[in-house]
Order: sequence, then structure tokens, then C-alpha cells
Amino acid sequence: MKELVRDVESILEQTLPPAQTVPEILHESMRYSTLGGGKRLRALLAMAACQAVGGDIKKTSGLAAAIEMVHAYSLIHDDLPCMDDDDLRRGKPTNHKVYGEAVAVLTGDALLTEAFAELARMPEKYGVSYETAVRVILELSAGAGSQGMVGGQVVDICSQDQDLDEETLRYIHAHKTGALFRAALRGGALLGGATEEQLSQITRYAENFGLAFQITDDILDETGHTEQLGKAVGTDQALGKQTYPRLYGLEQSKAMARQCVEECHEALREFSEQADLLRQLASFIIQRDH
Amino acid sequence: MKELVRDVESILEQTLPPAQTVPEILHESMRYSTLGGGKRLRALLAMAACQAVGGDIKKTSGLAAAIEMVHAYSLIHDDLPCMDDDDLRRGKPTNHKVYGEAVAVLTGDALLTEAFAELARMPEKYGVSYETAVRVILELSAGAGSQGMVGGQVVDICSQDQDLDEETLRYIHAHKTGALFRAALRGGALLGGATEEQLSQITRYAENFGLAFQITDDILDETGHTEQLGKAVGTDQALGKQTYPRLYGLEQSKAMARQCVEECHEALREFSEQADLLRQLASFIIQRDH
Repeated sequence: MKELVRDVESILEQTLPPAQTVPEILHESMRYSTLGGGKRLRALLAMAACQAVGGDIKKTSGLAAAIEMVHAYSLIHDDLPCMDDDDLRRGKPTNHKVYGEAVAVLTGDALLTEAFAELARMPEKYGVSYETAVRVILELSAGAGSQGMVGGQVVDICSQDQDLDEETLRYIHAHKTGALFRAALRGGALLGGATEEQLSQITRYAENFGLAFQITDDILDETGHTEQLGKAVGTDQALGKQTYPRLYGLEQSKAMARQCVEECHEALREFSEQADLLRQLASFIIQRDH
Repeated sequence: MKELVRDVESILEQTLPPAQTVPEILHESMRYSTLGGGKRLRALLAMAACQAVGGDIKKTSGLAAAIEMVHAYSLIHDDLPCMDDDDLRRGKPTNHKVYGEAVAVLTGDALLTEAFAELARMPEKYGVSYETAVRVILELSAGAGSQGMVGGQVVDICSQDQDLDEETLRYIHAHKTGALFRAALRGGALLGGATEEQLSQITRYAENFGLAFQITDDILDETGHTEQLGKAVGTDQALGKQTYPRLYGLEQSKAMARQCVEECHEALREFSEQADLLRQLASFIIQRDH
């Protein structure tokens, strides 16, 4: 897994325009927020899903880069003063603290645009068929858009300081983080040549993975340390955000996360050992401490 | 031309998710800033370029919608307090004045993502080949990205209150507005089945069109009225922005714009009367008063 993370880092390094590209400050800023950190979970999921259906992991290089760029853009915009107003991310000052708000907004915009450019380059760079490239672009735009990640972020922002019911909390998580996991997994499976049945099980995996991830994230925000997380802890509470531990208590939240991981394994029951990386990722997600 | 503008409006109306789609505030906001206004110049350019090379204008519907969404997103982000801090756009309060800064940032993000989704839907909706769809996505991402529109905006923001030389001013305009015109025109030409030679002349047209547009925009900012423009006038000067009239004086700026329009007509010399809409647009651009 560590080796794959290094591969993702090197793909991103090569995909992002060099820091000397005009305008330098923008490309420097894009690289500052995308390179050198992060679990690369979304890229790993894309790779693992491709492998699980018997595909060549190299075909996912474009998607791996694109999905990490989309993730990086979303963090830059989430951290802005008008959103969560965070100063620290992955143990470093947030983008707007370094480059200012205007460049931070534009850096996010540029990363999102570059992500789609990279997907459109897949046929030329990685021999992906034009039709598959278009299908993967549809997956990423659905996952990242107004009825995906951005939709979840809007509902999250608009419901701060409100007592949320479980339905709304689930909506936020399924969209804010879940939708991008889903795009990574389904996109990776498409690039690996998945059958409809495989795609449907991968989707089931994706939904449970996303929920397990978010519950664990909420738990860590309450119990973790700033040092481990690389960002301030207790911020959800400070912002008056609803979380699983606040709604169900710590123990029940942990049990729910474990249940989701079991569902992930269940979804992969018919898959061969080629799906072992996907299986590991599901188990990893609730054991992590950052 | 008026009829085509109505067509664009109706395509956008049908392409954008309905305002009742969850989250409602986001889809309402996307529609607020995209529908009901604007010259639809970029969409018209895409249609006109397609027609000029003998293509069916209906094939450009997806691109027309996508490029207007990208334009709308760029205006929302440009108007933010951390950028140009504008209160008025197309005669209406700017997006963040109505929906707040956080939703405004996210509305721009959602529109940009939806634009790529719509291009990826072109094969299914408009019978565009997968390969052409991918090529058009490459054009739009290049035009909108870090070495296109966003790059121009970064240099513009970073050079406020500085005395710019002509080279930097040209860079800003060629990228901030020119790159998207270019994507509209080249994308439209590709959808119309342009030959390499036609594509190259369309590109030449695009570059001159973009410059003529920007010089005229600068002139109008100095000489126009708030009512005609639908936005505050003299704002470039207030922000300490460099403009053509400030660099060359009003008369020479007008002469430069006329020269660009002549170049546009020159680029179309080998085209039939099917290019008449493109010819009209070039002449229109320096005669407009808003």
C-alpha cells in the first residue's frame, strides 16, 4: 500500500504543471495543496477497484491524479474563511493562509478544471478508450457536482448550529465525502472493464465504505490529537456541526462503523483475491488514528 | 441572432437541474446566476463556428450550455469580496449578495463541474462521437484552466495597483477572456467537423475577436453608463487596474479594436456565406454599448 501511495505521489508530481509555469504563483499554489501529503485514499480506491475486476492498475493513473486534484480543491475551498475558516491542514498552513484568499479560490478552480483535463487525456496517455474516458468523466462530475460533493457541502454549511436528524446527517456524509469515494471506485472499476454485476457490488462497497469513513472521521475529531490529525481537533463541535458521536454516543458509533465494514466485505464475496487491496482498505479505514 | 440567444436560454433552462432539486438553495443559486441575462456571446460563437465549417448547429447545444455555465461560474467567483468585490452584475445583485459568500463559492464550483458533465453527455444527448466529446473537453479545460482563464485572472488580481507593460496587459486579456472565446470557437468548429486548416483560421479569428472584445470592454468601462452596462462603471480605474485606454488613450484604443475586427474578417476570407454569423459577431463586438 505504501508503494502505491508513492506511485500516486509521483503521478501527481508529473501531472501537475511545473511550478515555473506562468503564472508561477498559481502553479506553486496548486502543487502546495496537492503534493506531499494526504492518505491518497481516493486514488488507492480507484486503483484497488480496477485491480478487483481484473484490470491493469496503470490504466487508473489519470483517474488517480484527477480524483486527488478534486479532493485537494475541495479542501482548499472548505478551509476558506467564508466556509470552515481553518488555518491548518495536513500539518501545514492552509492555502489561503499562504497565498491569500483570492489565489486560494482560483487554485481550487484550476485544480478542478485540471482534473477534467487529465481525464480527457486518458486515451492519449494511457490507452483508455474514448467511450470509457467519457463514462469516467460522467462519474467524476456526478460525484463532485451539485448532487454530489458540492451538494453535501452546501447542506453542511447551511445546517451549522442546527440540530440535525439522522436523515440530514446521512445526506451530508453520503454526498460530502461518500460521492467522491463512489466516483473513485466506480471510475476505477470502469477502467478495469467491470461487468454490470461487478459495478453494482463495487457501488455497494462504496456506499458502506463512505459511511464507515465518515463515522470514523467524526470519532477522531472528538478523540484524536491535533498532532495525529494534522488539523485542529474538536472543530466540528466548535462549529456546532452535527456528528455521529453527538447523535449516537461513541460506542454505538463505533459499532455502526464496524457494521459498514462488514457490509464492504460482503459486497466483495464473489470477487477473487485480486480484490484483497479493496478488502484491506475497508479494514484499514476504521483502524486508522488520523 | 436574437432567436439564437433565445435558443441558448432555453437550452440552459433545460440543462440546469430544476430549482426544486436537493439542495434547493444551490440549484436556485446556480439558476439565478446563469439564466435570464447576458449576451450569450460564447454560446453564439460556438454555434457560429460550427455553422461556419458546415456543421449542424444543434450539435453545439451541449457546448453552448457548458461554456455559458463556465462563464457564469467565473463571474460569480470574480465578484467575490476577496476578488473584485462587486455588488451588481447584469443589473442584479451579485450571487454572494443574495446567497452569501460560502454558497457563492460552491455555486461556482458546481457550475464548473456541471459544465464538464454536460460535455460528457454530448454523445448520448446530441449524437456527438466519443472522440469529439473528449477533444471538446480538452478545449474547454485548456481554455478555463490554470493556463487559460484562471491563469489570466490570477495575473490580473496579482497586478492590481501596478503599472503594467503591454505584454502583461495582453497576457491578462488573452487568458482572462480570450481563452474562453477560443475554446467556444474551436469547440464549435470541432463539433462541426472542421478541417485542420479551418480550425487554424478559426483560431486566428478567436485571438483577434478576444482582443477586440477586451479593448471595447475597457473603453466602455471608461465611457459607458451603469444603466447600460448593468454593473458599476469606472471600477477598473477604482481598482487600479491597467486598461487599454489608460495605456494608449481612447482614440488609439478604438483604432486597435477596429484593426482586430479586420483581422477577424481576413481569417474568414476562404469561408462561404455559412460564416456570416461569425462575420456579424466580429462587427457587432466593437459597436455594442454594453
